[in-house]
Amino acid sequence: MAVVIRNIDEAERTEVRMDGVKGATMAIMVGRDDGAPNFAVRQVVVEAGGHTPRHHHDYEHEVFIISGEGDILLGGERHPVRGGDVIYVPADEEHQFRASTDGSGLRFLCAVPVTRNCGDPVPAS
Amino acid sequence: MAVVIRNIDEAERTEVRMDGVKGATMAIMVGRDDGAPNFAVRQVVVEAGGHTPRHHHDYEHEVFIISGEGDILLGGERHPVRGGDVIYVPADEEHQFRASTDGSGLRFLCAVPVTRNCGDPVPAS
Repeated sequence: MAVVIRNIDEAERTEVRMDGVKGATMAIMVGRDDGAPNFAVRQVVVEAGGHTPRHHHDYEHEVFIISGEGDILLGGERHPVRGGDVIYVPADEEHQFRASTDGSGLRFLCAVPVTRNCGDPVPAS
Repeated sequence: MAVVIRNIDEAERTEVRMDGVKGATMAIMVGRDDGAPNFAVRQVVVEAGGHTPRHHHDYEHEVFIISGEGDILLGGERHPVRGGDVIYVPADEEHQFRASTDGSGLRFLCAVPVTRNCGDPVPAS
């Protein structure tokens, strides 16, 4: 077997190109290419003043804030987030991560299922 | 909706009581009780010199090392692990985490699917 142990500091992140995104890069840490049958783990870094898209989709996120300062829109309100927070974003809930403008940015892991709708691939899994 | 944002420092961990475990505590950070449909995220802390069981099971782990020093048995060999490592433990692979005897312990997140075998609950999900 190929042993998969990848450090977040050594992962090559690429720019997230989606409508509504500002200053975000991402790397798939474990995903379908590794044979992961159920879920993928992505690393996301949002630079100070940047944000992920304000959107919703038919699959959930489970998120771990590694470091940085910012907030999340969830349940219709903004909530501050900090290193060590684990966040559950249910399917179909509008959400958005923002990094504080005066901080060091926001770094987090975001897990998603690799499939939805009985087998369709989830993007970036 | 109930917004789930839980910090790892505030989670109440309980002792892991399984054969082959030494000095490990665990807290479910997000799980089936939160309505998570696909996977659960648990926090595990292994004290210096402690270890998780050497075992295998029919579901995978995806692990993030938060901090500490130790190693993992995977693919028949021991590999050092450190903060920032993301690890994929495929289903049916023997594995064990050990915290170094002279370190501060090993703290990690361990994600598992909430079901296996077409619907049976996975333990501690």
